Amino acid sequence: MNKGLLVVISGPSGAGKGTIYSKVIERTGMKRSVSVTTRKPRPGEVEGVNYFFRTEEQYQQMIAEDAFLETAAVYHNYYGTPKAPVFENLEKGFDVLFEVDIHGVKSIKKKYPEAVAIFVMTPDFETLSDRLRGRGTESEDSLKIRLGAAKRELGSYEMFDYIVFNDEVERAIQDVIDIVNAEKRRIKNNLPQIKHLLGKE
Amino acid sequence: MNKGLLVVISGPSGAGKGTIYSKVIERTGMKRSVSVTTRKPRPGEVEGVNYFFRTEEQYQQMIAEDAFLETAAVYHNYYGTPKAPVFENLEKGFDVLFEVDIHGVKSIKKKYPEAVAIFVMTPDFETLSDRLRGRGTESEDSLKIRLGAAKRELGSYEMFDYIVFNDEVERAIQDVIDIVNAEKRRIKNNLPQIKHLLGKE
Repeated sequence: MNKGLLVVISGPSGAGKGTIYSKVIERTGMKRSVSVTTRKPRPGEVEGVNYFFRTEEQYQQMIAEDAFLETAAVYHNYYGTPKAPVFENLEKGFDVLFEVDIHGVKSIKKKYPEAVAIFVMTPDFETLSDRLRGRGTESEDSLKIRLGAAKRELGSYEMFDYIVFNDEVERAIQDVIDIVNAEKRRIKNNLPQIKHLLGKE
Repeated sequence: MNKGLLVVISGPSGAGKGTIYSKVIERTGMKRSVSVTTRKPRPGEVEGVNYFFRTEEQYQQMIAEDAFLETAAVYHNYYGTPKAPVFENLEKGFDVLFEVDIHGVKSIKKKYPEAVAIFVMTPDFETLSDRLRGRGTESEDSLKIRLGAAKRELGSYEMFDYIVFNDEVERAIQDVIDIVNAEKRRIKNNLPQIKHLLGKE
């Protein structure tokens, strides 16, 4: 049986990767990953559904055991993607989709080079700036910081396999779905089946 | 501007590559290639539409000038894909689709390594055998020869980028269209646009 695909979506804040991520999960049934965090559960959050909640000591132990595909600190809390459940899904033939930041992509590509990385970008930086401004929550200073970060992120394009320009969100969602489907047709992702047909296993 | 893609479809006789090729051209508007041949025109065939008709001397001259992406002899006539019109289309940003045999794929990949090669195959060899038998035109001997050839062709899978299993023809057509769309999103096929956005050209 062919293994599942590990696909990661990244891109600057405001490019729309969150919406695309949710819609692709919804339409394809790809598996999402449940993160491990040291943050305290909020009311209604369920262990193993929203997050795996761990103490900082447990978390550090997991880091020491190389149990994460990627891990990051946000406001004194850790968030990480645990390897084991992801690799189990891939072995069972399920495709997995993550939404991660640029550091996450770098880490995942290092630990699992077969991962497919998609960069989601607006058609240009003016559009990104307009969208961020349209949120009405960004000061001009924070806007400048976000645009600078976006440029650095796009500057890391060599880390990625694909770029989807989110001009029209339905088109961008379909582009990601097409990329996943195409990747599943790649020769290297069909070797078990090809070798089976050739009577070589 | 990004260049167009050169995509080649190949696969064993009976796998349905001809139908898929025609439908993909019809639905996407990808450019086809007009072959050069030494065969005499049949009634109704138009120069530059069905073929470019050339004398054997002219054809040999074109071979000497390395003017072909691939060339083959069939029953004492030559058939070849001329480079110039294909490269012109690619430069203009048009995607081009060919249907060629396994030798054609090898030659094209050698002369234009960026070409994307798709192998069209039935789900298994039994289905291929059934389809060939269903034509009612194959003797048992020719069936054996065709199946042997099909196995050798699949054995050349490393030459290809993708494999599409033609179980249900509409699905297979869509797979090829998805592959083309995904390839157009590849980072390496968007470098002019990315560098433009980064202000590097």
